[in-house]
Amino acid sequence: MTTQPTKKLINDVDRCVDEAIEGLVAITPGITKLAGHRIVVRDDLDDVKKSGKVTLLSGGGSGHEPSHAGYVGLGMLSGAIAGSVFASPPTSSILAAIRAVGRDNPAGTLLIVKNYTGDCINFGIAMERARAEGILVEMVVVKDDCALAGQDLDDRRGLAGTVFIHKLAGCMAESGLSLHQIKQAVVLACSSMGTVGVCLYPCSVPGAGPSFSLGPQEIGLGLGIHGEAGIKQLQLSSATDVVATMLDQMRDSTNNCRLDLKSGDEVALMINNLGGTSNLEMAIVARSVLQYLSDAEVKVEMVYCGCFMTSLEMVGISLTILILDQSGQRASYLDQATSAPAWPSVSHRHGNISLGKELPVLEQASLGSTHVTRKGEKMSNESCKRIKTVLSSVCYRLMESEKLLNDLDTISGDGDCGSTLRRGAEAMKTWIESEELLSVSDVAGHMSIIAEEAMGGSSGALDPLDAAYRILKEGHTNNSDSMKTLEDAVNAAEQSAEATSMMAARAGRARYVNPDQLGRPDPGAMAVAIWLRAAHNALRAL
Amino acid sequence: MTTQPTKKLINDVDRCVDEAIEGLVAITPGITKLAGHRIVVRDDLDDVKKSGKVTLLSGGGSGHEPSHAGYVGLGMLSGAIAGSVFASPPTSSILAAIRAVGRDNPAGTLLIVKNYTGDCINFGIAMERARAEGILVEMVVVKDDCALAGQDLDDRRGLAGTVFIHKLAGCMAESGLSLHQIKQAVVLACSSMGTVGVCLYPCSVPGAGPSFSLGPQEIGLGLGIHGEAGIKQLQLSSATDVVATMLDQMRDSTNNCRLDLKSGDEVALMINNLGGTSNLEMAIVARSVLQYLSDAEVKVEMVYCGCFMTSLEMVGISLTILILDQSGQRASYLDQATSAPAWPSVSHRHGNISLGKELPVLEQASLGSTHVTRKGEKMSNESCKRIKTVLSSVCYRLMESEKLLNDLDTISGDGDCGSTLRRGAEAMKTWIESEELLSVSDVAGHMSIIAEEAMGGSSGALDPLDAAYRILKEGHTNNSDSMKTLEDAVNAAEQSAEATSMMAARAGRARYVNPDQLGRPDPGAMAVAIWLRAAHNALRAL
Repeated sequence: MTTQPTKKLINDVDRCVDEAIEGLVAITPGITKLAGHRIVVRDDLDDVKKSGKVTLLSGGGSGHEPSHAGYVGLGMLSGAIAGSVFASPPTSSILAAIRAVGRDNPAGTLLIVKNYTGDCINFGIAMERARAEGILVEMVVVKDDCALAGQDLDDRRGLAGTVFIHKLAGCMAESGLSLHQIKQAVVLACSSMGTVGVCLYPCSVPGAGPSFSLGPQEIGLGLGIHGEAGIKQLQLSSATDVVATMLDQMRDSTNNCRLDLKSGDEVALMINNLGGTSNLEMAIVARSVLQYLSDAEVKVEMVYCGCFMTSLEMVGISLTILILDQSGQRASYLDQATSAPAWPSVSHRHGNISLGKELPVLEQASLGSTHVTRKGEKMSNESCKRIKTVLSSVCYRLMESEKLLNDLDTISGDGDCGSTLRRGAEAMKTWIESEELLSVSDVAGHMSIIAEEAMGGSSGALDPLDAAYRILKEGHTNNSDSMKTLEDAVNAAEQSAEATSMMAARAGRARYVNPDQLGRPDPGAMAVAIWLRAAHNALRAL
Repeated sequence: MTTQPTKKLINDVDRCVDEAIEGLVAITPGITKLAGHRIVVRDDLDDVKKSGKVTLLSGGGSGHEPSHAGYVGLGMLSGAIAGSVFASPPTSSILAAIRAVGRDNPAGTLLIVKNYTGDCINFGIAMERARAEGILVEMVVVKDDCALAGQDLDDRRGLAGTVFIHKLAGCMAESGLSLHQIKQAVVLACSSMGTVGVCLYPCSVPGAGPSFSLGPQEIGLGLGIHGEAGIKQLQLSSATDVVATMLDQMRDSTNNCRLDLKSGDEVALMINNLGGTSNLEMAIVARSVLQYLSDAEVKVEMVYCGCFMTSLEMVGISLTILILDQSGQRASYLDQATSAPAWPSVSHRHGNISLGKELPVLEQASLGSTHVTRKGEKMSNESCKRIKTVLSSVCYRLMESEKLLNDLDTISGDGDCGSTLRRGAEAMKTWIESEELLSVSDVAGHMSIIAEEAMGGSSGALDPLDAAYRILKEGHTNNSDSMKTLEDAVNAAEQSAEATSMMAARAGRARYVNPDQLGRPDPGAMAVAIWLRAAHNALRAL
């Protein structure tokens, strides 16, 4: 626990859920808010009820966005009820929502509830009240948690798998199935589904600090979605190892909350971002999960990857597996279109979910190409040897300078200038030492291609290059002594590189950095001075 | 700078971009990877080129996911080229992508590049090379940054507005417009667009710690998307104030990188999550932005809210405004469908983007209702007065106990049990003191409704209630002295509440907490003991 509340973009702790609902309703077509309640419903409720189709409600504490309001739309929920952050909504609100979607609807209403004590009590009381008012209403409790290995099946918490249930039930309701049929199918689907979560950094309820803490290399396995810590702490290993730990736990035969996943099973997979995980990591995790399931001979029919059931800004993920039925009904329900904004736009089945798909790359066209190699006068063996010696020496000197240049770059850039040049120098040295050098233009052309391929980013190299170039050109014009001219050029480049410490950057990352933080020479300019000096030294030593 | 790298779900720092692309391509229908490169292309490239339509490429450093690979699809990009995290891709890869989508395509290829030195150089060289191979290719550089107020217009960085350009150009290309027409329209759109970002917590490049630091209540205004700090640091205020600061900066007449946004303008708005911001906050920010623009008499035609151009897991947002043209062309281009997975599924214009839309709530139906009030025997004025005195005293005692109960709840729950009961007690006290009490069932019914409405969550109240109930029932059956029976019941409840310190929770949040962390009585049970004792004391004092 920290006393300092976590920084958040909110206006008022008590009003944060109300304001979020106001914002969401304003920017989302097709939904509206029920006056006086934290309830989002389809804005065509009259048509929905007249259609004679079952209506669906879900809800629970806030902080799980896009759950549940993001799933309100044609083909998913009719409405969603929000409580305060991580707290069950009051019975009065649940009852108001049931009235809104259930009254004058002979097809009835299904409540989809996650298995938490507060939700079960409050939705249950509201259901009884609504029934007493003559409304046809049923409830299904989702329990997809595979983490609480030692406990009773009824203790399984409701996690991200609930979103699969929203989609299945939503499609069935839109297809005109009865309340009884939907409830039966959904209860069966719940028993074919498992979820396990992992947390790297906790979240904070608005106005408070983090709800638990983890060590600098520690992760929590088997966590819920209300900011509670996991069932056990582990050391963070690779993404692939973390995924294996999660799925092993889900399938462990000694875990009485396990999912019985067998070789040959066809499944739908949800990779759920708990809120603050980068999309780069999400895609890496997707790769690891597909690899694991492929090794287990489980066939992944559809993958949903993104934010579905979050815990505010928690860094971590959950994995949900829904085993598809042989008849293909579940898959077809998941496939159907919905207008709910939080269901992914591209989510249809695609036959070939496997790693390693690639298209061949097109080679350089011969027609009209400016071939950089095989041009210019063939050089003598003697010249070839001299050039190799000088260039090797230059590359070696750049490799040696990695740390110096990285240190300079830490001030003005992202600290990798020396490493970038070292990579380029290594690649050039390898090429120089393994190839026969044909001509000066061949060498220059190849070196430019190696620089392009092995080195990214931009560096402040132009000033010293320009200073050296002017002196070399003048010496060439005047037929001056070439070694003397080169020495002058190197000196000019070094002065010019040192002078960059007084310059404001006009290109590259450095130009966005406060000039007060600079005051030392540009690492790219220094690199030019270093390799020019190295070339001069190598030539003198020949 | 910290020495401890930030925890991430990756396998290998050097391979993280490659693995993310492998994962993305596997789970996304309609795209594939170009062998040997970090390039994602539509998997129907042959058809695309045969269609005689302009092809579109974008790209840049990784770490901005879903940019840019998430925008590859019909109606948006033909392909996307990824560099290492926050580093421009090498020219050789850009050239390979141009060949893949541009060769044998007489309509030509447009490169959409964000204004960073490395990207401009590398895409520029690749374009020249491709032209030398006979490929028709043009480039447009996006500069939507409004943060660098003092600098030249050409220094504006390319930020989230680039995604709007992908969509506009993508729709135009799909509609069969020429390379020249698309480039012209897109350059014009770029000049009608502005972006400003704000950061609450920095991101970390894989294998490293955070790239800068901010104080515990500090935010960075006007940041880029490569982990660089903002142009200035401010104290975090409310979401509404932060939004006003951002949009004021964007419109400031002394800012030569400003967007000239005028009253009456129709705009498309992008609220971009930089990666780690909770969806709850995103919706609150949306509300604040709509309020600001409404006050400025700017008409918001369409809103896009979510992760579009991230900086890994950075906590913060950027706001992009694109002024729509009078003819409605830009709006219609944004409206058209695309198969690109990262463009929101629900993103069409909807006429009435404004705050405060609501449906009226349905009241309790009179037919068949179990009306809790107006039932039972009317009580005497004397009884009414006695009950009011006792209940007021009970409520007051619960309000007094807020801190004690919160402290107990910090161990087993989320520390709000006392506050929840205080809120409920306040609401009951107000009702008791303002209403005439009609009957015992009227009082009990109203109190249950107040409890439902004012109090959420679950508490461990059943054990002491049960203990007290048994004694009260036995006393009633045996016609025992009622005050003596009540005293016994209160004592039993207190013992039972204290005994909860030795129990393992079977319901509520406490059941997921390690039992070693408990060892003190349950706050919900203690609350029952407290109010029963208060009732007994009040009755004795009558």
